[in-house]
Amino acid sequence: MSALHQEKQNGARIAIVGGGLAGSLLALALAQKGHAVDVYERRPDPRRQELAAGRSINLGLSKRGMQGLAMVGLLETVLQKAVVMSGRVIHAPDGATRYQPYGKNSNEVLHSIDRNELNLLLLEKALEHPNLRLFFEHKLERVDKARQTLYFEHAGKQVVVQPLWVVGADGAFSTMRRELQYGERADFHQEYLEWGYKELTLAAKPDGTSVIEKTALHVWPRSHCLFVSHPNRDSSHTLTLFLPHEGKDSFATVQTREDVAQLVQKYFPDLAPMLPNLQEQWMQHPTGALLTIRSAPWRYGDWAVLVGDACHAVYPFFGQGMNSAFEDCCTLMQTLQEHGFAAAPAFAAYEEKRRRHTDALCELSKRNFIELRQTVQSPWFLLRKKVDLLLNRIMPSSWLPLYTMIAHTTMPYADAWDKAKRQDRLLNATAIGLGGIGLWLTLYLTLGAR
Amino acid sequence: MSALHQEKQNGARIAIVGGGLAGSLLALALAQKGHAVDVYERRPDPRRQELAAGRSINLGLSKRGMQGLAMVGLLETVLQKAVVMSGRVIHAPDGATRYQPYGKNSNEVLHSIDRNELNLLLLEKALEHPNLRLFFEHKLERVDKARQTLYFEHAGKQVVVQPLWVVGADGAFSTMRRELQYGERADFHQEYLEWGYKELTLAAKPDGTSVIEKTALHVWPRSHCLFVSHPNRDSSHTLTLFLPHEGKDSFATVQTREDVAQLVQKYFPDLAPMLPNLQEQWMQHPTGALLTIRSAPWRYGDWAVLVGDACHAVYPFFGQGMNSAFEDCCTLMQTLQEHGFAAAPAFAAYEEKRRRHTDALCELSKRNFIELRQTVQSPWFLLRKKVDLLLNRIMPSSWLPLYTMIAHTTMPYADAWDKAKRQDRLLNATAIGLGGIGLWLTLYLTLGAR
Repeated sequence: MSALHQEKQNGARIAIVGGGLAGSLLALALAQKGHAVDVYERRPDPRRQELAAGRSINLGLSKRGMQGLAMVGLLETVLQKAVVMSGRVIHAPDGATRYQPYGKNSNEVLHSIDRNELNLLLLEKALEHPNLRLFFEHKLERVDKARQTLYFEHAGKQVVVQPLWVVGADGAFSTMRRELQYGERADFHQEYLEWGYKELTLAAKPDGTSVIEKTALHVWPRSHCLFVSHPNRDSSHTLTLFLPHEGKDSFATVQTREDVAQLVQKYFPDLAPMLPNLQEQWMQHPTGALLTIRSAPWRYGDWAVLVGDACHAVYPFFGQGMNSAFEDCCTLMQTLQEHGFAAAPAFAAYEEKRRRHTDALCELSKRNFIELRQTVQSPWFLLRKKVDLLLNRIMPSSWLPLYTMIAHTTMPYADAWDKAKRQDRLLNATAIGLGGIGLWLTLYLTLGAR
Repeated sequence: MSALHQEKQNGARIAIVGGGLAGSLLALALAQKGHAVDVYERRPDPRRQELAAGRSINLGLSKRGMQGLAMVGLLETVLQKAVVMSGRVIHAPDGATRYQPYGKNSNEVLHSIDRNELNLLLLEKALEHPNLRLFFEHKLERVDKARQTLYFEHAGKQVVVQPLWVVGADGAFSTMRRELQYGERADFHQEYLEWGYKELTLAAKPDGTSVIEKTALHVWPRSHCLFVSHPNRDSSHTLTLFLPHEGKDSFATVQTREDVAQLVQKYFPDLAPMLPNLQEQWMQHPTGALLTIRSAPWRYGDWAVLVGDACHAVYPFFGQGMNSAFEDCCTLMQTLQEHGFAAAPAFAAYEEKRRRHTDALCELSKRNFIELRQTVQSPWFLLRKKVDLLLNRIMPSSWLPLYTMIAHTTMPYADAWDKAKRQDRLLNATAIGLGGIGLWLTLYLTLGAR
């Protein structure tokens, strides 16, 4: 197998390391353009796996991700499996709720989709394509850049692959990135958030309806912790609790079933009665960590390039992890086509075009954590949101709230941020101006009346 | 050997991975306090090595480093091998020179010392100590944190060590750091400078005297490149050229002997005639890269801790690499003693006390690169330097220039930086105030005279 495999590979096929969301999307896009592609995935074939019961991880599909799915002709299929989220419902500590629409019309919505279901769909579509082969349980062990060779471990044996070129789509702990950057002057920034997360399921009612508004993302913002929920098609919701790893009321201190109940009762009294099996879920579900990564370079000559989490992992607070990874794939396909599929200039153009925008997204995602936790509760924030949306309605083509630009357009991230900063300065100057006029009027009326 | 070695180790001895400057200093300090210490060094025994001819790497020993050497009673011995540098000589493009003293008296000087000679001295002193053993050609392969076990490769065999606890002093590419942080929520920031370096020797005159002022550090600052020289005892100087890796007039473009001569002639016409064998040296000496690293955590429970470059590599532009590493050793010895050599609280106190200061040093070292390149040439910078030193002479205990605090005191780095920022604000406010008075006087005299 190993020798034959190697022979078939030599120089003829593109290899993609990682059959996750970005890897399988890119594989499909390349295959559809007539390229022979092999995907190597570390995990077993998901079609043979039993899905972990009672858990699903949801993602919010927005414009950039939709563009990626449209590129391979799967947007409609995916949207049929998704639940529309037309806005955020903010749950205050006293149980009061407020609704914030995501945009000004039915196009400016998010779609909640099950991560595993989406991945499976992409892999199945990939398998149907004659140009594409999938190799599961292939773990990348090392890379010989000079000899342009990949060494995988499969079923206890070494598999040697010499692809035409290779894409690293193997996630935040990417082996491809490590090997590509080994011995190079590589920049690398990795930071963990002091908060972790745990996923819980909010079951549907016995009659099959949702216990909370279904077509929305729900947020229970507290300064010390945070619940976010995404809807599922079966009217259940996937709740994610964000909580500090250490310190008072943290994952470290909440140990017993009693601790769990107390924590939720203390911060989320309105949510507690909706979660009868909270403690069982807490004990069964793992605690996750949140990681952000910026790095450079993303490529090695004409032979290797990175996409998605492998080159830029972000915190989930802007809902752009998958969306930005899919946008990477679109940008890479675009630069490849612009350069007639000449790898070296296409990879260089891709990194040049893309990296500063995903670096900006890293920063924006950190900042949105603070927004989600704290400012969504403040009247000033809510007013600003309303003014932002109002200005957007009045000047739909020139005034765009930051969230709108990130979620509902494909304006490059750094450009969106720059525009938002300019708009902010204008809003602040206007506020100061109006305040000045107000002050002048007050003084005039008070002193002039004497 | 392996089994015996393991048996002797079990739980009884402290292991230090890396026998460089920090590792050998710390080993000596621990041995002198009565601890049994084993040092594992990847390289061969330097006493059996022929020193690379014609090259030496010099370091500027300043107060913090001297404190480290004093801790193990070696300061006097080292100073005898060093050359005093009482200030900087700045060489302008037209060949003009300016002298800037490092401080206000003969205590505020740096000492130029040969890195290899210093390392050899520390290792020899370590070998003389009965509590201390040195194992060369032992390369750390992996670490089992749960079993508190180190696996080295030595002469093709595996050596298994189970120390009481272990110090990672294995440099910027530390295997200990990688293993200590593996699977943890570790922050890691690595950046390469776009400039590299090459070392050249400026030979002494035939009569054994220096071709440039011996007891000074020399700088040839240009905005595009930079030469720095450290004196050697034999009156030669070690020159370091800092130059961009890529682009016009870079290490990438300077390839032929002709290119080398042209580059030096173009930017350093005064230096060119002093370097008759420039081209041979250029071709023989490697091009180095400059790296900065910040990271956390520095420790693992009661079993492992990092010092020096392994936890904070800095650019060399503040001359604090070795000095900060030696200061780490002093801080660690101090917290160990404060906690009765209880490892867990001592390691925690060490990281808590130290990390924010070396993080500040990382940033300061980046900024000093800009100072060395550009501002040392500007009259405003020179004036500020003079005012700074003047204020220091007038108020020696309360006004301290940043360079003085970093090089000639042991004030923690971040505190020094904070103080410098306060002083800067004061200087700027004074300048604005004086400017205001000047403007007022001008207006008064001009308008008043009418």
